[in-house]
Amino acid sequence: MAQDPLVIFTPSGKRGRVAPGTTVLSAARQLGVDLDSVCGGRGICSKCQIAPSFGDFPKHGVHVGKDALSEWNAVEERYDRIRGLKEGRRLGCQAQIMGDLVVDVPPESQVHRQVVRKDAAVRAITMDAATRLFYVEVEEPDMHEPSGDFERLARALKDQWEIEAITAAPTLLAKLQPTLRKGDWKVTVAVFADHRGGPATITEIWPGLHEAGLYGLAIDLGSTTIAAHLCDLDTGEVKASAGLMNPQIRFGEDLMSRVSYSMMNPGGDREMTKAVRAALNDLAKEIADQASIDPTLIVETVVVCNPVMHHLLLGFDPVELGQAPFALVTSSALALPSAELEFSAINPRAQTYILPCIAGHVGADAAAVALSEEPEKSEDLVLIVDVGTNAEILLGNTSRVLACSSPTGPAFEGAQISSGQRAAPGAIERIEINPETKEPRFRVIGSDLWSDDPGFAAATAQTGITGICGSGIIEAVAEMRMAGLLDPSGLIGSAEKTGTPRCEPDGRTHSYLIHDATADGGPRITVTQGDIRAIQLAKSALYAGARLLMDEMNVDKVDRVTLAGAFGAHISPKHAMVLGMIPDVPLDKVTSAGNAAGTGARIALCNRAARARIEAQVRRITKVETAIAPRFQEHFVAANAIPHATDTFPELSKVVSLPAVSFNTGGDDGGRRRRRRG
Amino acid sequence: MAQDPLVIFTPSGKRGRVAPGTTVLSAARQLGVDLDSVCGGRGICSKCQIAPSFGDFPKHGVHVGKDALSEWNAVEERYDRIRGLKEGRRLGCQAQIMGDLVVDVPPESQVHRQVVRKDAAVRAITMDAATRLFYVEVEEPDMHEPSGDFERLARALKDQWEIEAITAAPTLLAKLQPTLRKGDWKVTVAVFADHRGGPATITEIWPGLHEAGLYGLAIDLGSTTIAAHLCDLDTGEVKASAGLMNPQIRFGEDLMSRVSYSMMNPGGDREMTKAVRAALNDLAKEIADQASIDPTLIVETVVVCNPVMHHLLLGFDPVELGQAPFALVTSSALALPSAELEFSAINPRAQTYILPCIAGHVGADAAAVALSEEPEKSEDLVLIVDVGTNAEILLGNTSRVLACSSPTGPAFEGAQISSGQRAAPGAIERIEINPETKEPRFRVIGSDLWSDDPGFAAATAQTGITGICGSGIIEAVAEMRMAGLLDPSGLIGSAEKTGTPRCEPDGRTHSYLIHDATADGGPRITVTQGDIRAIQLAKSALYAGARLLMDEMNVDKVDRVTLAGAFGAHISPKHAMVLGMIPDVPLDKVTSAGNAAGTGARIALCNRAARARIEAQVRRITKVETAIAPRFQEHFVAANAIPHATDTFPELSKVVSLPAVSFNTGGDDGGRRRRRRG
Repeated sequence: MAQDPLVIFTPSGKRGRVAPGTTVLSAARQLGVDLDSVCGGRGICSKCQIAPSFGDFPKHGVHVGKDALSEWNAVEERYDRIRGLKEGRRLGCQAQIMGDLVVDVPPESQVHRQVVRKDAAVRAITMDAATRLFYVEVEEPDMHEPSGDFERLARALKDQWEIEAITAAPTLLAKLQPTLRKGDWKVTVAVFADHRGGPATITEIWPGLHEAGLYGLAIDLGSTTIAAHLCDLDTGEVKASAGLMNPQIRFGEDLMSRVSYSMMNPGGDREMTKAVRAALNDLAKEIADQASIDPTLIVETVVVCNPVMHHLLLGFDPVELGQAPFALVTSSALALPSAELEFSAINPRAQTYILPCIAGHVGADAAAVALSEEPEKSEDLVLIVDVGTNAEILLGNTSRVLACSSPTGPAFEGAQISSGQRAAPGAIERIEINPETKEPRFRVIGSDLWSDDPGFAAATAQTGITGICGSGIIEAVAEMRMAGLLDPSGLIGSAEKTGTPRCEPDGRTHSYLIHDATADGGPRITVTQGDIRAIQLAKSALYAGARLLMDEMNVDKVDRVTLAGAFGAHISPKHAMVLGMIPDVPLDKVTSAGNAAGTGARIALCNRAARARIEAQVRRITKVETAIAPRFQEHFVAANAIPHATDTFPELSKVVSLPAVSFNTGGDDGGRRRRRRG
Repeated sequence: MAQDPLVIFTPSGKRGRVAPGTTVLSAARQLGVDLDSVCGGRGICSKCQIAPSFGDFPKHGVHVGKDALSEWNAVEERYDRIRGLKEGRRLGCQAQIMGDLVVDVPPESQVHRQVVRKDAAVRAITMDAATRLFYVEVEEPDMHEPSGDFERLARALKDQWEIEAITAAPTLLAKLQPTLRKGDWKVTVAVFADHRGGPATITEIWPGLHEAGLYGLAIDLGSTTIAAHLCDLDTGEVKASAGLMNPQIRFGEDLMSRVSYSMMNPGGDREMTKAVRAALNDLAKEIADQASIDPTLIVETVVVCNPVMHHLLLGFDPVELGQAPFALVTSSALALPSAELEFSAINPRAQTYILPCIAGHVGADAAAVALSEEPEKSEDLVLIVDVGTNAEILLGNTSRVLACSSPTGPAFEGAQISSGQRAAPGAIERIEINPETKEPRFRVIGSDLWSDDPGFAAATAQTGITGICGSGIIEAVAEMRMAGLLDPSGLIGSAEKTGTPRCEPDGRTHSYLIHDATADGGPRITVTQGDIRAIQLAKSALYAGARLLMDEMNVDKVDRVTLAGAFGAHISPKHAMVLGMIPDVPLDKVTSAGNAAGTGARIALCNRAARARIEAQVRRITKVETAIAPRFQEHFVAANAIPHATDTFPELSKVVSLPAVSFNTGGDDGGRRRRRRG
């Protein structure tokens, strides 16, 4: 008796013998090969496309003849005629294995396909969304065997897809009968299966084969900006991104002023909850519009945010977060119907997942950074700093991960700075000061030219030069120190001491003039002694937080530093180190993770197991509370100085270039805005 | 070494030795004795009251000395002073066992106490509500060990009550922090634990010990009337009952006319859904008001109803129920947040349980009857008939249970009858016709006097004599047959043939005059030939349904008959049998179950296990579809005759008296209305 044909799947390398006539899809299932199918092998969804190879495969020890697969059949013929099938492709559910075969499963035919993360080329997201589509053929009702339409649909899902327990909300059940009849008892259902187990839920139903896709929103809910990515839950592709200002700004610029607003105004928390929920609905509508999809195709959302935003989104009064012991209402991850957050712009049965908070000051955004950056998998000791009004700091490696937050205040974002402004066109974002002449050159947002480049005046004529943003002030202070305009204590020298008239008397101290735009009706942009002090306070807080974690870890240096947050991506590592914002490491060991919190949200949206992973990981993270640590104060005071000048740290002359992450807020300012997170 | 004290609990008889100093509550837990406690042994809830016995107990072989229990302590002293403790009672959590002891757990101290069913004295409901109260002391937050308040509450529930997994909706979590702080970290929570397993849910929270109780609504949602019982979920006590007319009546009197309304009017189903949901809210408010409780203390509801009402309540278009094959959207029991039914008058996190439907025509009301009457536990073969516009019929015993429904039409409820009216004051409900004189005497709703009693005219002066209700017309037709006014085919004889001028010519047929109220401006109340035909059709349908089940069971007689439904309770078995509504059985084998569907709802409300039981039982019931059974038509035609006259069935002269079930609709008519179900 001849042996059954041997089939070898690539790229998995899985192999085995199957009975002649077995379809490639059946063979894949038998051998545990990841081959997609929505229609369950009925030749209509084309998700199971495969590419057979023919000829000799000495590596596998097989020869694949032209007749290793059954002939192109009528179903494939029809599909190719109507939709078109790529050269060399077959439908896995139609092509039958007749002889030894080597067959490739292209990435788009894998359920658990890998999605490249643009922000971190080395890692990929494995697709395993909580919501998936299933096409089923349902038995028609029979008076002799009375059973509900839902019970027959459930049986079809069990028989055809091995989905055991299934539930559905009344609003879905209300659509069931007309949809089943419209689809002639063939329907596609979207099934949400939580990562914690429990019965799966049907969240949507369509007649026949649904081909318009299924989407999720990864939402990074910041104090200042709300950003979202619309992801295809099948391919992981980001179909659109959008952002808008958090409307809660009118209740307070920073988190603590919002907490105060709630304390002072009865019902103030509810006003803020209403505002942020309305904004999420606006954002969902805008992003669906941008991608030209029906917003009801958005069936899942994942939200990451800091604890105060977390509470305000969920309708919890954040008042306890404003005072010791900073008790969260709940720190656990939450999986709940989006409707409970009044998320009305998307599918009425959509599900929302909110990542766990780490502690009262270390939120779901920090958890998302941990999910994206995976310090627990790092052999090196990595310090991850998410810079914002409140900095989230993680320190760890494979043996242990610590977390804290540090109240840096808004100086890093240009607030409380005399010429400060938020990152918007016209803001100075890069500065260099010539150590010889003490003359500055700079760049403003909206132009790639330096101020001493020809054409700069023309390029900036429209926006003007309006102030200094967060990354600009960091560079300005560091450059002033390197140019000898500041002493290590942060005092600005006089014109006499420094040899430049730009160091002007300013009351009992001095200011450094960067640019005088008064001739054009613009401001006089200076760095005052007060600005230096504000930046010193902010950077001391950040540094002290990092040091506190290092103490707890019992180390005095780290192997590498990751700057996270869209703002973090714009900070020059050299200047950050000159300032003493971060501990000293070789400059090439400082990298930017871009908007790591947003990436973490995307990972949790696309991969169910990631939710379980971060929930478990957060429980293992050691929380360090800065507010009660005596050593925090010590580090804070000790970190006040600006340690480095170029002469003491020559390596700093090497500048590491970081990729700039631009962020489209959807506004019409035509320029670039950068996201600020609190 | 002396032996540990022996403790014997009554009435359970559980016994064992415990270390001296063990509290009675701890001893009960060690020995698996059902002793209640909400406060967890803190001496504040008094749920664990026990009654020690002293003296010689030769049966148990012990002597209980006066010092068998520790002395009355300060906690008991205080409790007695403030709240009062019954003579001979101790707090089980305070009294310590010092010597051999016999101790009684009074019924009110048992968690799973038995509640006597008024309608069926032989059976009781064992209390085991899905929602229970738990008093817990929660750890305060600690900055060194950051954890959410909810996580600490969950830990307290686990440590103090062994509740493992717990969840809560955002609206509950929003109340958590203020409540914990108001209660000084001591709170009472209402925990809902579904009978299907899965995580328990906190549905309400109160500071300190909550003593205002916890309630549930058992709702019998009929086509004509909606009735509800407000039950204490701890004691099972019915605190209030109320009912109101189903406002859907304006869309159609009977079920099929409502289905037609939906077919003819786009959005008509949504109008009807809105109407019934509004009515449930009104009913909840009314019943809470009647019992003087806060409606948010209503945390559970159980609904029983026929399939059309089921669909309209849930927001499903009932159109498929109007045509073969009568497919239900879902036949499964549903456990869902009451909010999904827009049940806004009760606790916002209340849970609703809807019993399973048996088939497209045999609804959750029939399942509730099965739960209440338990035909599957009957050694006798019992026929259970729930009489209404649609009759639900169950036939079964320990070996097998069958169910069907039969479209009797509204004649039994007084509709389609020339002088018919719904059961309301002024309606004739009982009739006797003297076989000699052929003269009638009758009683009307609102008075206990017969029409030939002295004072009858005065007693009925206010209501008048307005028509005949369902039970009245059944008696009238049966009495007419027994008095020889009707032949077996149902034809009314002429005055000449019958010898009474009350048999008046009426077109080509005759009518029988029961009462002429025209002198008082009232109607002329007659039974026409058309009325007889309508009743014949209705009773034939009912009888044919019962016969069909008997065929299926392969029997030609049943051992006993139970008439269910509030209306069923008013039907005289003798007359029902004369009419041929039900198969012949000895009259003492016909009993009334009262509103068995409503009782079933109460059982499911009070006892979680009953939900699992009826779900399993419904799957075992054999559904028989009358619409497609050829034998149904045969039985229907054959049942048209009115078989019995007194001479052929002398036993019928013995009248069985059935308890009257009165039903307060909450209206102000001052009289008695009877509920009619469709």
